Amino acid sequence: MRIVRYPEREVWKKILERPHTDISALNGVVDGILEDVRNNGDEAVLRCEMRFDGVSLQSLAVTDGEIEIAVRSVDAELKEAIELAHSNIGKFHMAQLTTEHKVETMPGVTCWQKSVAIQKVGLYVPGGTAPLFSTVLMLATPARIAGCDDIVLCTPPDKNGNVNPAILVAAKTAGVDKIYKIGGVQAIGAMAYGTETVPKVYKIFGPGNRYVMAAKQRVSLDGVAIDMPAGPSEVCVVADETSNVEFVAADLLSQAEHGTDSQVLLISTSESVAVRVSEEIDRQLAVLPRRDIAARSLENSLCIIAHDGSEAMEISNAYAPEHLVIATEDYDVLADKVVNAGSVFLGKYACESAGDYASGTNHTLPTHGYAMAYNGVNLDSYIRKITFQHITPEGVMSIGRAVEVMAENEQLEAHKNAMTVRLRNIGRK
Amino acid sequence: MRIVRYPEREVWKKILERPHTDISALNGVVDGILEDVRNNGDEAVLRCEMRFDGVSLQSLAVTDGEIEIAVRSVDAELKEAIELAHSNIGKFHMAQLTTEHKVETMPGVTCWQKSVAIQKVGLYVPGGTAPLFSTVLMLATPARIAGCDDIVLCTPPDKNGNVNPAILVAAKTAGVDKIYKIGGVQAIGAMAYGTETVPKVYKIFGPGNRYVMAAKQRVSLDGVAIDMPAGPSEVCVVADETSNVEFVAADLLSQAEHGTDSQVLLISTSESVAVRVSEEIDRQLAVLPRRDIAARSLENSLCIIAHDGSEAMEISNAYAPEHLVIATEDYDVLADKVVNAGSVFLGKYACESAGDYASGTNHTLPTHGYAMAYNGVNLDSYIRKITFQHITPEGVMSIGRAVEVMAENEQLEAHKNAMTVRLRNIGRK
Repeated sequence: MRIVRYPEREVWKKILERPHTDISALNGVVDGILEDVRNNGDEAVLRCEMRFDGVSLQSLAVTDGEIEIAVRSVDAELKEAIELAHSNIGKFHMAQLTTEHKVETMPGVTCWQKSVAIQKVGLYVPGGTAPLFSTVLMLATPARIAGCDDIVLCTPPDKNGNVNPAILVAAKTAGVDKIYKIGGVQAIGAMAYGTETVPKVYKIFGPGNRYVMAAKQRVSLDGVAIDMPAGPSEVCVVADETSNVEFVAADLLSQAEHGTDSQVLLISTSESVAVRVSEEIDRQLAVLPRRDIAARSLENSLCIIAHDGSEAMEISNAYAPEHLVIATEDYDVLADKVVNAGSVFLGKYACESAGDYASGTNHTLPTHGYAMAYNGVNLDSYIRKITFQHITPEGVMSIGRAVEVMAENEQLEAHKNAMTVRLRNIGRK
Repeated sequence: MRIVRYPEREVWKKILERPHTDISALNGVVDGILEDVRNNGDEAVLRCEMRFDGVSLQSLAVTDGEIEIAVRSVDAELKEAIELAHSNIGKFHMAQLTTEHKVETMPGVTCWQKSVAIQKVGLYVPGGTAPLFSTVLMLATPARIAGCDDIVLCTPPDKNGNVNPAILVAAKTAGVDKIYKIGGVQAIGAMAYGTETVPKVYKIFGPGNRYVMAAKQRVSLDGVAIDMPAGPSEVCVVADETSNVEFVAADLLSQAEHGTDSQVLLISTSESVAVRVSEEIDRQLAVLPRRDIAARSLENSLCIIAHDGSEAMEISNAYAPEHLVIATEDYDVLADKVVNAGSVFLGKYACESAGDYASGTNHTLPTHGYAMAYNGVNLDSYIRKITFQHITPEGVMSIGRAVEVMAENEQLEAHKNAMTVRLRNIGRK
């Protein structure tokens, strides 16, 4: 880990800069596949599955029989863990339900917001080296609580046309309606535009490689909402002399193993802790199965020595990490200073992997500094707050003249007239 | 108005289709301006102001002196109306503030969301024929309540380099920090990338012409969040034999006058009401200053005769209108059936222009069917809900094994290890 000691505020931005990943170069390929799926539906999807996943599928939909086989094949301890995680994610997102709250802004003028679930949502769960069944729970559990009518899940099959059984168990546990064996750009296209088999959805969630990210961006220009823009995963750990060096090293490594482009940042007010964390990382790294990936991601990682906790938090806010672990004893003081972050882990026992899997918070979070403007997936991600208003004759008296004056000054006479005819109706004109 | 009687469900989609506005043809021009502003800052902005707004500006920032002059020049009745509207918008959005609510998902595992304002937001208010000072109130009032640090407003100046005084009064009333005389694509570029004068913001709000819309889409691919995609404004009125024909006609016209591309839809369960509304529209239209615009927009508008209120609401949901006026006596029954809409106006006295100006709800709403996936601007639009968690040793015992099992099955051993070192620390391993 490269150590930077007490950098001046002026250079923070430069030091904290993330590598720029330009995915616009992929647009040509991505647009071609999206257009193909849009025009040719299932036929195009099946062709893409042959071409990109090397599999000849008889049918895109996962059958009930396949789900039953998966449930039988997954071992009991994993099933229990999935159920525990699902229960906690459910509790946390259930607590985000809100009740209608009517506001009388003036006598006779009543306004409120009503939460209504997005009717059709699409979830993408990547395949690849690790079967991300935890992402199924994170995306489907709040969708079900929100009350979405259709929850569609796409995930790539293996060469034999099978979906990883843990993914199917998680989908069943979380209440996913429709599961399709489709990966990559063709999955995003199928959900965005619909095919003979796959229903069109209104919003698409989930992580993916650079092609999937580019595809989500492209369909978002076409009226399909997406959860958020995405980039490589990242963690920032804030430490001081009270931090547990073994824990900090383990937390940094758990991020570094994600991929060679993962970002790992340590901000420590103690240089000796930073040095010991670095040594401890080397020790733990040696026994990790994914040590090659982690080692390469650590090459680009950084440790900043800060003067005090306040400065450490200012640096963290300037970086806006996806995950922020505050591993100090005074974590509650520092937590109050968080302005930009996706999810925050407080104290020595709250490791990132707790939130990645089972504590209840969502692990679909804004990376790449997007935490400046976006939050992670939560219940609201699946809901629209539709505003309603009711106005009585008294309400017309309360605001009628103001509406007329404002409309007139915006030179919108028909807007004015809509209020004038009502004022006249109640005898006020 | 074209009347369609009792259309079969199969043809709803076709009938309700909106004209497709492809703005990608503008991307070349838009990208050029954005790139220029990004590279050349103020100098490019000043050059664009000369080129597009025909004005040679000495300075981009509106001065306190200019605001004082505006305050003196706006007449008292308009100032009062602006204050009344600001107060109601404030009350409605203030009621959307939420308090932290800690959830113990399992013993020792506590999770919560904290609402934190986006630090820097940019508001765009178009110029053109009508000075949209109401939009200033709609965008700036919730930004101030949310607690955004920097609220930047860009609006094009007139040929003499002045901003409409009502816009300045609204900005001052709503507490905008920084006002710049910049319009169009160059305004979006200045706020997205920052210049010597204009601070870079993290999220951009506000309406605009097709160039502004295209620019917002482009910068959103570059990491700057935007409020929502936009299209022409639209209203759907649901009526029956209990509806007031004069009011319904006035409401349809208040939408039609916006622009020739405005969408107006009447769904009536009574054919005779539909016919009378159409006649009343002709009567009211004759005396409107913007009758040419309204007449052209009405040419593309539609009246659908439905069998009953339920079917009327199903058609409305299939259309997903920006504004929905339920002008029937049983509005409360029909209101429960709303699934897709931006803002809903209930009963004979709640006209769209009430919500456009002064009732308290926001008028920045999803058009073009985006209401399927998006809601209008509300307090949450200016806030991120950052998740926090704290875990005790008991919490590690509650979820530790589940985290280990799940991480292992996702082949993420470092994730597992981060929990294992903690289980070992508390003597559980």
